[in-house]
Amino acid sequence: MKLLRYGAAGAERPGLLDDDGHIRDLSDHISDVNGAALARDKLAELAALDPATLPLISGNPRLGPCVGNIGKMPCIGLNYSDHAAETGAEIPKHPILFHKATSAISGPNDDVSMPRGSTHTDWEVELGVVIGTAAKYVSTEEALDYVAGYCVINDVSERHFQTQLTGQWTKGKSCDTFAPTGPWMVTADEIDDVQNLSMHLDINGTRRQTGNTSTMIFSVAEIIAHLSQLMTLHPGDVISTGTPPGVGMGMTPPQYLAVGDEMSLSIQGLGTQTQRVTMDT
Amino acid sequence: MKLLRYGAAGAERPGLLDDDGHIRDLSDHISDVNGAALARDKLAELAALDPATLPLISGNPRLGPCVGNIGKMPCIGLNYSDHAAETGAEIPKHPILFHKATSAISGPNDDVSMPRGSTHTDWEVELGVVIGTAAKYVSTEEALDYVAGYCVINDVSERHFQTQLTGQWTKGKSCDTFAPTGPWMVTADEIDDVQNLSMHLDINGTRRQTGNTSTMIFSVAEIIAHLSQLMTLHPGDVISTGTPPGVGMGMTPPQYLAVGDEMSLSIQGLGTQTQRVTMDT
Repeated sequence: MKLLRYGAAGAERPGLLDDDGHIRDLSDHISDVNGAALARDKLAELAALDPATLPLISGNPRLGPCVGNIGKMPCIGLNYSDHAAETGAEIPKHPILFHKATSAISGPNDDVSMPRGSTHTDWEVELGVVIGTAAKYVSTEEALDYVAGYCVINDVSERHFQTQLTGQWTKGKSCDTFAPTGPWMVTADEIDDVQNLSMHLDINGTRRQTGNTSTMIFSVAEIIAHLSQLMTLHPGDVISTGTPPGVGMGMTPPQYLAVGDEMSLSIQGLGTQTQRVTMDT
Repeated sequence: MKLLRYGAAGAERPGLLDDDGHIRDLSDHISDVNGAALARDKLAELAALDPATLPLISGNPRLGPCVGNIGKMPCIGLNYSDHAAETGAEIPKHPILFHKATSAISGPNDDVSMPRGSTHTDWEVELGVVIGTAAKYVSTEEALDYVAGYCVINDVSERHFQTQLTGQWTKGKSCDTFAPTGPWMVTADEIDDVQNLSMHLDINGTRRQTGNTSTMIFSVAEIIAHLSQLMTLHPGDVISTGTPPGVGMGMTPPQYLAVGDEMSLSIQGLGTQTQRVTMDT
């Protein structure tokens, strides 16, 4: 099942994508694709619906972030062995954690607006993990039972803010529009092996990132288990799990985004998101 | 005006503290002490009410976090010159930013529960700044116009998680119950000079932290202006602005919290919060 949110920013309605690629409205069944709707029982109720009986949404509405009211977005840094090699960083002993401000979260195809004067804004295709059941002190073995589904996230990063404004990466990760999330959340039952998903990112049609979740240093299950030792992961929280090689910072010479660029990101089975780059006025 | 939230966790009701120290219910006027209630017009409406006409709440109900539905809690590290000296750290060139997970936020007098096996949990009395009006690209001169009020925050910190689990301080700052917030939010009009507030923290009745917001490296206005260059500060966001000297990590030898300890924190004009220390089972 592919759950999504469509409509104007801040006024999105819940929907699903049917097998023909059409949006069907879910407003009669859930108020939003949020923590409450992601409980296992509730997802089973939605899965039992016949999409053909749901209102068909015509046209091509804007898509919002595929999960509403995201409580927190923990992000893992340097989590692909081939990306760590690219940046010259050591393989971390534990997952590196920072939080993106939830105010950074935007729709999958909304413009990404660089902060005024930014010259170091970079791209990062990442697998997003949507929590469905509250997780605290869970083991690696049981961790995936707490996942409602998966989605694509662009962990947009201002490298000057991230590395030059006095420590702590979150400064470069929390700018408005720096977390396009979607196009939809694919429920976990549709993903055979979350540690074998190919992913890529193009800038203006040129392939820049190519990767596979098989080269993650810490698996999705290990990340959930580790974070749950530190804090409760709540339904509707979304974890961004790190990026594969090919970011602009790793190019020789480094290359960053410019106004007018187009980013297009995909993960196997999870769809594609596309953003145009603008700059705050 | 002193705004607060009282009642069981997750079911708090809005109220204010009257001049006799009694809670008066505000449910007929606002649904919660949240971003919507903190707009300048709405605060003026509440200030015009005669507290004697509001329902008097008897007994001694639990207090919740003084702001509900906090969108993000940006925190500033090493922001007191005397605390920076204590830890041996250099004076930072820019405010050091990390985000506490909002799931860490708890009532001002709720128990603080250390993660299983924690032996390095520490205290930090901090001034909390509650945003009332959305702030983006604001100047230092105008920054305080965006503030609805102030409160006390205990930025509880697990130092092993913060410094030994691979970079990025947020790991030690985001544990459940690690952000007692309140007892109330005092509206900005009641604070003559936010850069001259005395503050202290006691452990089991022994004074451990003594400070004053006058020794902040970056003033409240500078912090707001800086953060607003990076991201929008939304109504109901709460910024924690760093801690003065006297944390356990800075003692010789370092001293940390133990089960059964009592923390008591005050800031001039903003009230007192008291927590008992427990440990997750």
